[in-house]
Amino acid sequence: MDADLLQLIIPVAGLAAILFALYLARDVLSRDQGTKEMQDVAGTIFEGAVAFIRRQYSTIGLLAIVGAVVITIVITVFETADVADTDIFGFDLGWRTGVAFLVGAACSMASGIIGMFISVRSNVRTAAAARRSLVEAVQVAMRGGAVSGFLVVALSLLGVWGIFAAFGGLNAETVDQAPFLIVGFGFGASFVALFAQLGGGIYTKAADVGSDLVGKVEAGIPEDDPRNAGVVADLVGDNVGDCAGRGADLFESTAAENIGAMILGVGVYAIAVTAGWPNPEAWIFFPLVIRGFGLFATIIAMFFIRGREDENPMNILNRGYWVTTVLSVAALAFTTNVMMQTNGNAPSGLPVWIYFFGAGVVGLATSVAFVYITQYYTAGTFRPVREIAEASKTGPATNIISGTAVGFETTFVTAITIGIALFASHWLGSQTGMTNASGHDVGGIFGTAVATMGMLMTTAYILAMDTFGPITDNAGGIAEFSRAEAGAREITDRLDAVGNTTKALTKGYAIASASLAAFLLFSAYIDKVNLIQTRRGEPLLEAVNLADVSVFIAALIGAMLVYFFSSLAIRAVGTTAQSIIVEVRRQFREMPGIMDYTQRPDYARVVDITTKAALREMLAPGLVAVATPIIVGLLLGAEAVAGLLMVGTISGVLLATVLNNGGGAWDNAKKYIEAGHLLDDDGNVLGKKTAAHAAAVVGDTVGDPFKDTAGPSLHVLVKLLATITLVLAPLFIR
Amino acid sequence: MDADLLQLIIPVAGLAAILFALYLARDVLSRDQGTKEMQDVAGTIFEGAVAFIRRQYSTIGLLAIVGAVVITIVITVFETADVADTDIFGFDLGWRTGVAFLVGAACSMASGIIGMFISVRSNVRTAAAARRSLVEAVQVAMRGGAVSGFLVVALSLLGVWGIFAAFGGLNAETVDQAPFLIVGFGFGASFVALFAQLGGGIYTKAADVGSDLVGKVEAGIPEDDPRNAGVVADLVGDNVGDCAGRGADLFESTAAENIGAMILGVGVYAIAVTAGWPNPEAWIFFPLVIRGFGLFATIIAMFFIRGREDENPMNILNRGYWVTTVLSVAALAFTTNVMMQTNGNAPSGLPVWIYFFGAGVVGLATSVAFVYITQYYTAGTFRPVREIAEASKTGPATNIISGTAVGFETTFVTAITIGIALFASHWLGSQTGMTNASGHDVGGIFGTAVATMGMLMTTAYILAMDTFGPITDNAGGIAEFSRAEAGAREITDRLDAVGNTTKALTKGYAIASASLAAFLLFSAYIDKVNLIQTRRGEPLLEAVNLADVSVFIAALIGAMLVYFFSSLAIRAVGTTAQSIIVEVRRQFREMPGIMDYTQRPDYARVVDITTKAALREMLAPGLVAVATPIIVGLLLGAEAVAGLLMVGTISGVLLATVLNNGGGAWDNAKKYIEAGHLLDDDGNVLGKKTAAHAAAVVGDTVGDPFKDTAGPSLHVLVKLLATITLVLAPLFIR
Repeated sequence: MDADLLQLIIPVAGLAAILFALYLARDVLSRDQGTKEMQDVAGTIFEGAVAFIRRQYSTIGLLAIVGAVVITIVITVFETADVADTDIFGFDLGWRTGVAFLVGAACSMASGIIGMFISVRSNVRTAAAARRSLVEAVQVAMRGGAVSGFLVVALSLLGVWGIFAAFGGLNAETVDQAPFLIVGFGFGASFVALFAQLGGGIYTKAADVGSDLVGKVEAGIPEDDPRNAGVVADLVGDNVGDCAGRGADLFESTAAENIGAMILGVGVYAIAVTAGWPNPEAWIFFPLVIRGFGLFATIIAMFFIRGREDENPMNILNRGYWVTTVLSVAALAFTTNVMMQTNGNAPSGLPVWIYFFGAGVVGLATSVAFVYITQYYTAGTFRPVREIAEASKTGPATNIISGTAVGFETTFVTAITIGIALFASHWLGSQTGMTNASGHDVGGIFGTAVATMGMLMTTAYILAMDTFGPITDNAGGIAEFSRAEAGAREITDRLDAVGNTTKALTKGYAIASASLAAFLLFSAYIDKVNLIQTRRGEPLLEAVNLADVSVFIAALIGAMLVYFFSSLAIRAVGTTAQSIIVEVRRQFREMPGIMDYTQRPDYARVVDITTKAALREMLAPGLVAVATPIIVGLLLGAEAVAGLLMVGTISGVLLATVLNNGGGAWDNAKKYIEAGHLLDDDGNVLGKKTAAHAAAVVGDTVGDPFKDTAGPSLHVLVKLLATITLVLAPLFIR
Repeated sequence: MDADLLQLIIPVAGLAAILFALYLARDVLSRDQGTKEMQDVAGTIFEGAVAFIRRQYSTIGLLAIVGAVVITIVITVFETADVADTDIFGFDLGWRTGVAFLVGAACSMASGIIGMFISVRSNVRTAAAARRSLVEAVQVAMRGGAVSGFLVVALSLLGVWGIFAAFGGLNAETVDQAPFLIVGFGFGASFVALFAQLGGGIYTKAADVGSDLVGKVEAGIPEDDPRNAGVVADLVGDNVGDCAGRGADLFESTAAENIGAMILGVGVYAIAVTAGWPNPEAWIFFPLVIRGFGLFATIIAMFFIRGREDENPMNILNRGYWVTTVLSVAALAFTTNVMMQTNGNAPSGLPVWIYFFGAGVVGLATSVAFVYITQYYTAGTFRPVREIAEASKTGPATNIISGTAVGFETTFVTAITIGIALFASHWLGSQTGMTNASGHDVGGIFGTAVATMGMLMTTAYILAMDTFGPITDNAGGIAEFSRAEAGAREITDRLDAVGNTTKALTKGYAIASASLAAFLLFSAYIDKVNLIQTRRGEPLLEAVNLADVSVFIAALIGAMLVYFFSSLAIRAVGTTAQSIIVEVRRQFREMPGIMDYTQRPDYARVVDITTKAALREMLAPGLVAVATPIIVGLLLGAEAVAGLLMVGTISGVLLATVLNNGGGAWDNAKKYIEAGHLLDDDGNVLGKKTAAHAAAVVGDTVGDPFKDTAGPSLHVLVKLLATITLVLAPLFIR
């Protein structure tokens, strides 16, 4: 098999995934849309979601255009001949980076919009299918989710490949320069992801908390009751937060981490050219090729999503996940074997590709580990959730204390797993004995890049499972809202519980990939700084020295940034929720017919108010995230900003773990009590309407902005820090 | 003035402070002890506190002896001739380090025990004085607190100086070796502080939360009601947590940071000897001398604690604080001028001492800044607390969300202030142009050391204000418990509110000093590693390189450790509180006369059960704290463990800030509502017994283990990481 031929898989897999997504979308759209009532509420949700997305992406689009212009100017002015990484510099480099930024932003927006479009059309069809069959409902929801999954990954793959090709990546003479020209693409994707996740996250939790407080607590009507004017905003929120937000998050991961891996590939390329290995450019193309195979593995896995009516729906989804993983391992073996041919073997006598295959497997194993770690900490059958439920017996205070202890505890296994994965993949890579011209180990860091790429092979499947969450959540809401038959509601409730788990899994996966990738993105940053220093004839950046006072201060600021950013995000939810509460109260007061169902609440107005407030509130945390690394870089220099990046990443990953898992555990402790698993000292069930349940509801509400606003936004923040420093590196060198 | 003569101030100030403490103790003990009822309950508290302290310090003493033996063996085996920093090595060094460890541990225990002994005798006298006069009550409580403050600082000063003298510090030939021999003293102090703070913190909050839940919530009787068998344990807890715990914390700060500064002084000593400056050894003695002056400044300030009856008690205390600060500035100018004489001036033309005087002022200013920052975030008159009180209107969930946002937000100004202080003191120091033999800047890092020493000048006063807190808290409890007249209770309530503020201030101060000191302790660690490497002829540790995979993994583990440790500490409070609840319930059930006051509850049994549970529960977090740096050092090496130390410090300081300030703000939001400051939309007061107040009580309870168990224990953890790596450095070098 020729390695060059294998490159063809990139466009082929990208197009195949898009065609397959269209096929799935057609299949979903052709399904039964349920009763008139179902279609009515689904239509309202659809309108609300479209209104939010239109307004949000107009704002983000505007910000992106401003960003592109600023970047073009900055690069043109600062990346002059003597500092440029490549032969392209000044305005030539400026416009390329600006265009790459815009293309990255546009691809990210497109995948978010299309995915959400299908998701809000799948919900009613899932609700309708639930009237007939569990398996059919699972299939509809999962196919709807997969449209999002395939589009996000395919657009990111084709986008990176397209801009790479456009900037000379297919030309043998410039293949080693092109990766540096496309970093703007990753930055554009991060930029959009930050605002998409922040805006969506603030919207969804403000709508949830606000309409619960004004409906359940003040007016005393059930959750998702049609008399609550905020309830449609709540259902819209599931789509714009979980679906569009997480889509943008993982779009960014796949794009930015891919580009980082390609930059590290340039280092190996240089070794390969010098040593005369068969396919030097294969080391640069490897990340793209391996993701192509990941898409094929996921397409095949979609056909394994089938099962029995009485089966736990989670098992049906897990089946597909394991098919994806096993196929990915096989594809990894094949690809590393074909593309990573050297002359001679590693010092141990084994061929080099074996080690990188091992590193890729470490990545896939990390992904599997996080799936099970998240389940342990957030599923009701294990110790942590039971502990929180037990603590609810003595009231909300002990519930919160216990949940905080669980959230903090989850950092242990997270850090140890990431540490082992980094160490193992780095060790495997360093066993290849690859060193660059100045004798530095290159294999080790490339090993971590291969592990990251291995992990990202399953992204499309994971993202499909994630979008399954809001679709089934919405399906449950539609069933409740349209007063569907009990059997259908029972099925949507079961799917909703599974959806909660899959949403939590995706966050664990996103964190793990962000932390594996962090290390390769740092290395790409240091490579870039050193390219500039070499051109200038200045001493290289050999270390990011924490014992230097500027680096230490920057590290302190990086660790602080994740708290401060989270504080702003959490506060934004509170502020936005207040505006919903005021409006719903006004409608109850001025439209007395709402309570006896004779007047229809003005759902659209609440959606509109929430949209405006959420978009206003996303600006402060977004700007803090963008401005902090730039200010620190300008004041304290290139080495210090690397310290900010690294310690900010460590702190961000851990705080996100605390917020995501703590929030998930609180949520499921409430569900554990609702399911009747909590008993008092005499063996009586403590279920709904008990003090213990009320305490658990407090924990669940506290967890909402933690797990759905601040936590996921931190993933994006961490990656934004990496891409922003990578693009603006020339600014920071003095 | 001769610099050598100035060294005499060390023993003189130490002895003067001890004599003054005895004078204050005599004065307090000679005061009126109040009514028979007051003496009764005070006696019960005293017994409980003594029982706890006896048992706790027996456990800690045992652990310390084991620790000393292990350290002696480890140092004997590993610090052989070729790796030792000085001419003393092997068993010679081993027994010295073991003895220093034991002396440090013993001094720390002694100051904790004596201070607490006076504190539990001052409470009833404060309550008695409150029946007559506010100013008299303030004076009694502050003098009682000052006994603790003076003893802690004096014992730490005399302890360090004594062991320094015993190990050759007064001999001109070994003065530059002795600082390395006494690091065991700092480790011993940290070791005791860790367990004292953990055990005391777990005890105090478990007793508080447990007796509130079983008394107020279950039995419906008021707080501090004599029928609640847990209430004495609660009052005991204030003494063992806030008083003995914080005393050990600051004992450790003054000792460990002093030793770190002396080690850095050795670097300047070498320069001074080579350049022939007048008093080379003055650079090593400076930290001890400056603290002697700090003690004198505090003694004088004690005479300024006077005011009018209608004055805010906080103003009376602030007056003394400002006197201490202003006198410290003057002493700093004098001492730097006398001791820091060089031949010739700094490159700018100014004398060198001016710059170090500036650095010391930066330290004092940082202390003042933290006092006001803490007030802003935790006092009821400012935005953060009002925001939490407003959020309580919509229930406990929004109260918790708002408090979390405030807690996270406080990291911003904390990090910026520490960053500026580090940068400014380092910059001032580096302007002196001091460089060592290999051309590295030494002045900068010594500038941060001087800043830390400047900050520590006011420790005795700060600690007196801190101990004022539990004394007045207890006085209020005694007044309530003994059903004292309303006038006395009104005064104790006002003092209790001030005590809450002073306790919060001390935590801010402890954090700020820990973070300033962190940097000098890292530098001492790197100096020590490089001394060993020089002897071995191995390459020096030039940088702690975060881009190295082992350092990065260790940094990740360091950041994780602070969460995991806090999780264990918070969970320990819950577990211990459960055992109190079970016992108080049993007494209510089996002793029916309690409820109508015909039977006296068995207070001692609850104290005993809480003591045992708290001491059992402190072991797990304590051992995790000690074991993690050792395991990481053994597995990943000396550079990696420095990464763990630095990033662990950054993360620990920030998480402690979040926990302390969040907890303090929740506490005062409840007090803000109780004081009748919260109004509803129609302008009616929402006070006690409203839903908003109930919500605020939830926040207060959640904040308890945050601000009084986990947060303060993190201060100690951060410093323990520094001393443990300093002592065990030879183990980590491969």
